[in-house]
Amino acid sequence: MIIIGELINGMYKDVDRAITNKEADIIQHLALEQVKEGAVVLDVNTGPYSKNPGDDMKWLVETIQMVVDVPLALDSAKADVIEGGLKIAKKRAIINSTSADPEKMDVIFELTKRYNTQVIGLTMDKSGVPNNKGKRVELAAAIVAKAIEYGINTEDLYLDPVLLPLNVAQAQGLEVLESIREFRLLCDPAPQTTFGLSNLSQGTHEVRSLVNRTFLAMAIANGLTSVILDPLDKKLMDALITAELFLNKQIYCDSFLDAYRKK
Amino acid sequence: MIIIGELINGMYKDVDRAITNKEADIIQHLALEQVKEGAVVLDVNTGPYSKNPGDDMKWLVETIQMVVDVPLALDSAKADVIEGGLKIAKKRAIINSTSADPEKMDVIFELTKRYNTQVIGLTMDKSGVPNNKGKRVELAAAIVAKAIEYGINTEDLYLDPVLLPLNVAQAQGLEVLESIREFRLLCDPAPQTTFGLSNLSQGTHEVRSLVNRTFLAMAIANGLTSVILDPLDKKLMDALITAELFLNKQIYCDSFLDAYRKK
Repeated sequence: MIIIGELINGMYKDVDRAITNKEADIIQHLALEQVKEGAVVLDVNTGPYSKNPGDDMKWLVETIQMVVDVPLALDSAKADVIEGGLKIAKKRAIINSTSADPEKMDVIFELTKRYNTQVIGLTMDKSGVPNNKGKRVELAAAIVAKAIEYGINTEDLYLDPVLLPLNVAQAQGLEVLESIREFRLLCDPAPQTTFGLSNLSQGTHEVRSLVNRTFLAMAIANGLTSVILDPLDKKLMDALITAELFLNKQIYCDSFLDAYRKK
Repeated sequence: MIIIGELINGMYKDVDRAITNKEADIIQHLALEQVKEGAVVLDVNTGPYSKNPGDDMKWLVETIQMVVDVPLALDSAKADVIEGGLKIAKKRAIINSTSADPEKMDVIFELTKRYNTQVIGLTMDKSGVPNNKGKRVELAAAIVAKAIEYGINTEDLYLDPVLLPLNVAQAQGLEVLESIREFRLLCDPAPQTTFGLSNLSQGTHEVRSLVNRTFLAMAIANGLTSVILDPLDKKLMDALITAELFLNKQIYCDSFLDAYRKK
């Protein structure tokens, strides 16, 4: 499982404040903690309140790279903000993300190719997020076709079915699970599959972690190969580690949770 | 999810003692508690130490039926012990179980038909439990074919891929998950799918409940329609209820766990 830590995102108030005040220690602490708890990639998003997202992205990338040595997922709706990060990224980055809109894909896949990155493709377009598996798979196929056109190795493409909040789109859970299974069959080598898990449980209050970890286990059973989550949620990580055990990716021992964390 | 409570089984020492001493209150308490926590069927097994399993099975069935009004899964390797229970069962029972051995199926399916019961078919035979999906599906197909030959409605057939302990047969987890998915495609109407969950975590000590609930969520995502488990394990039931939510079987509300339990 390629675990992408989600916590360095300006939509969180403390992160937004740290970005505004250039408090490097707060960002670096989040980077170190997430990597310590199992993140192998860190998402970097300046958030919705940033006045200079281009400068803020560069500062975040530099600040994070001072303390950890992991790839970054450069997360922005703006291609120039992403490119600013790509120019200074030390490790091979992930672009987060393109939609399935052809003109967006052209811009993002051109960057993907030029900077030799990986890339996340959201199965949504101008008309929004599909409400069924069929349309998600259709958009995924369009993303795959375009990626191949740009000479992108399909192993470097992360297809994201886009999780909607359970409390407003309950029926989408099953559609997403089945979509993940079908995405894996779209091309050879199979694409990665990922999603931003926290979106699922928005507004579910005290059951939030339960909702997240249960769905994550279900998605891993259906072929999820990557996930964007909060690696500091210990129960969530316990479920992830246990689910991976059943996919035979780690040898069972009585202390398998500790063994995973010491890796 | 058809939840079959597993706790009335003479392999547990306290239950064995209650059977030996005919302590009805202990058995009835277990029956009431399991139903209260969500079991809709109760498994009844006299256990390996019973000297008169035929008499003990009858006593258990009568004792349980005094306090709860749910179907029973009559669980024994001996057809005459099962038949003793069938003769006095008030609700439509489940026979637990037949293997895929033709002579065993002949005996059990004859009982199934004569007493109009449901039946669990284990995908194992004289050579043991298969170590892959292919052989499990092959045995499942043989069970389905024989059941149809006996005029059994395939909705009344529970196919059980047989869970092995994680700590000795780790690779079987994924084989079981994929088997469940394929079992559902074997006939129309689709058969039920079930397994005894506790077997998975034998000997896993303090992570036992984590292992059980994570795998259960993964299996539900793959089409599991029934499970034999300990309904008094609250965290396990929380995971089950949450996983079912994603299959859209219950409407989400913030207090969905309580709502399910009050049903």
